[in-house]
Amino acid sequence: MLNNLKEVNPLVHCMTNMVVTTYTANGLLAIGASPVMAYAKEEVEDMATAAGALLLNIGTPSVELTEAMILAGKAANKAGTPVILDPVGAGATTFRTDICHRILEEVDVSIVRGNAGEVAALVGMDGVVKGVDGSLDGDKLLVAKKLANAYTCVAVVTGEVDIITDGEKVYSVSNGHSWLTKVVGTGCLLGGVVAAFAATVKPDQYVEASAFAVSSYGVAAEKAFEQSNKGFGSFGQAFIDQLGIVTEEEVLKLRKVES
Amino acid sequence: MLNNLKEVNPLVHCMTNMVVTTYTANGLLAIGASPVMAYAKEEVEDMATAAGALLLNIGTPSVELTEAMILAGKAANKAGTPVILDPVGAGATTFRTDICHRILEEVDVSIVRGNAGEVAALVGMDGVVKGVDGSLDGDKLLVAKKLANAYTCVAVVTGEVDIITDGEKVYSVSNGHSWLTKVVGTGCLLGGVVAAFAATVKPDQYVEASAFAVSSYGVAAEKAFEQSNKGFGSFGQAFIDQLGIVTEEEVLKLRKVES
Amino acid sequence: MLNNLKEVNPLVHCMTNMVVTTYTANGLLAIGASPVMAYAKEEVEDMATAAGALLLNIGTPSVELTEAMILAGKAANKAGTPVILDPVGAGATTFRTDICHRILEEVDVSIVRGNAGEVAALVGMDGVVKGVDGSLDGDKLLVAKKLANAYTCVAVVTGEVDIITDGEKVYSVSNGHSWLTKVVGTGCLLGGVVAAFAATVKPDQYVEASAFAVSSYGVAAEKAFEQSNKGFGSFGQAFIDQLGIVTEEEVLKLRKVES
Repeated sequence: MLNNLKEVNPLVHCMTNMVVTTYTANGLLAIGASPVMAYAKEEVEDMATAAGALLLNIGTPSVELTEAMILAGKAANKAGTPVILDPVGAGATTFRTDICHRILEEVDVSIVRGNAGEVAALVGMDGVVKGVDGSLDGDKLLVAKKLANAYTCVAVVTGEVDIITDGEKVYSVSNGHSWLTKVVGTGCLLGGVVAAFAATVKPDQYVEASAFAVSSYGVAAEKAFEQSNKGFGSFGQAFIDQLGIVTEEEVLKLRKVES
Repeated sequence: MLNNLKEVNPLVHCMTNMVVTTYTANGLLAIGASPVMAYAKEEVEDMATAAGALLLNIGTPSVELTEAMILAGKAANKAGTPVILDPVGAGATTFRTDICHRILEEVDVSIVRGNAGEVAALVGMDGVVKGVDGSLDGDKLLVAKKLANAYTCVAVVTGEVDIITDGEKVYSVSNGHSWLTKVVGTGCLLGGVVAAFAATVKPDQYVEASAFAVSSYGVAAEKAFEQSNKGFGSFGQAFIDQLGIVTEEEVLKLRKVES
Repeated sequence: MLNNLKEVNPLVHCMTNMVVTTYTANGLLAIGASPVMAYAKEEVEDMATAAGALLLNIGTPSVELTEAMILAGKAANKAGTPVILDPVGAGATTFRTDICHRILEEVDVSIVRGNAGEVAALVGMDGVVKGVDGSLDGDKLLVAKKLANAYTCVAVVTGEVDIITDGEKVYSVSNGHSWLTKVVGTGCLLGGVVAAFAATVKPDQYVEASAFAVSSYGVAAEKAFEQSNKGFGSFGQAFIDQLGIVTEEEVLKLRKVES
């Protein structure tokens, strides 16, 4: 799938948060996609229609941006462009949770990428999931399936172990490196990488494409740590290096996926 | 204090300028804090209330953002959350100077972090301070004390030598490296680091916490230059590395503080 | 010219897109300019008047930002400050093409920096230019001259070979490295570097200053690849390093310019 991605070089329309724009764009360029950022309501429909995938990341939300995201999402739906939602901080403020619900109700979202706490907030299970970052794998699967079924989408719930499910099929991926949590934007960039893979397959392959995206990402992180373990800044750059270097063959060999 | 910061892992709500968001977030992650960026008036009160500290940096100001900052600042005051103001470009345009004055009047600001020229502009002494970047140390102390007394806050006035004062106690710190001035966002990130330290102490320790923050920062910069003096880009990354590596013991050993 | 730039240390007022702000600022600092970002209509006139050059980059456009750019542009015109336009994505959406036309009609733009496709869109020749990124050098020269003549400006049309022309004089520059296309913001930063050089010369030298800027940029990229060819992330940082290291003498020796 990675070879195919590089050949297709999909245009990924990113409406993402202002903390991670540069890192997202560099990661997408490295792996072989073409990122474009566009936020204005006057042009997002054109861009989403032209794109291979649309990423909606609410990390620095506003009312105006939400409206533009919904316009873009509807245009993407009409064009058959997959829509990937990253519900950054859902549960942290009601403003964010509400925005996600509005998007999920008005737009046909193909894939949601979040951590366990965020996904739990989306399905009203905040109280259940405590150890947000990966400890409670049982709960993680539960909220992932609930989200997938509630919105007929693929849920990508990341943590120490990543869960990818469409409500029936389930993949768990154990690649990656803990230093990713010390570099801002790595979670958000993963949303972009999932979008890039989704752009290159048909809807019935979104779950496999998402699992492959998560594996590729994790393998690149492992290679990055081998190359550069001097500190978090260098590691963050080395990870971009490796996103450009990692091959389909390496992913197939090094991925730790269970289904 | 650095060990304690890492243990507390404070949430720092950053309302900062769009040039430095990523670098600020990465620096805060490296040193052991949890950055969160939120700008919308609909959620800043919730976020500032939940946070351990609130950073207001006016580097790319707008009317709308100012209103949100004041909302956040008032919520922080109510919650007992320290508010750190970074008056980027005060004096460069009257728009910026006016915004800072509005914030200082409507919000109880705990700590102001700026260079001598910016702080001079805030206390109406633009004419006095000429050699903005550190040469006139006498003037720097003068404007720092004037600001601290005028707004009952800690003034952190940075330059070749950094002055930290609450109007009575005075610390001067001589750590750091001149290459910091060639990497955008290093001044702004320092505001964030001061906020992270402030989040872990009581108000009567803000001045000591600020001095320790400034020393830690300077020591990390010196270590970064030892590690990577190839160019400004590499140095900027190495500095993030070192913010994650520098220890309390190294700071205590290498800091050059006078009080 | 590079020695002179470093001596003048020009203030470059950047109104640029949110994907590339940090990289633009770091590149400008490295080469010896002083970047300042300001976007609010309340202050852009003051800032553009104080600056040595004004960069208008429409990479993440909005209606509000366009209004502020035009205010800034008119203030720059009044003050004799050169205005550099980077029409990112012109042709990709009509929103962007229209914004560029409005700016070009209301503001006296000194220099336009874009790729062949963008410039073709500005002069209504989208249909002619197909191989946007550098293959059709004949077409590139054609659209460059057409733009230069239509708006009495210098056109800097970048690609594998870069064309710089004021409609009469023509320079072509063959420096650079293909990896620049894998690091987001390198095209946009070039617009900033052209602005920095323009800030240090008289209007009748804008074409030579632009050619020197493009050559310096290309030579720095070649040196960066020699230093760091591990991956796109490292290369992007090494390029900032080299922008700070490259000397006038190296540019004069290594540039590949034809006129």
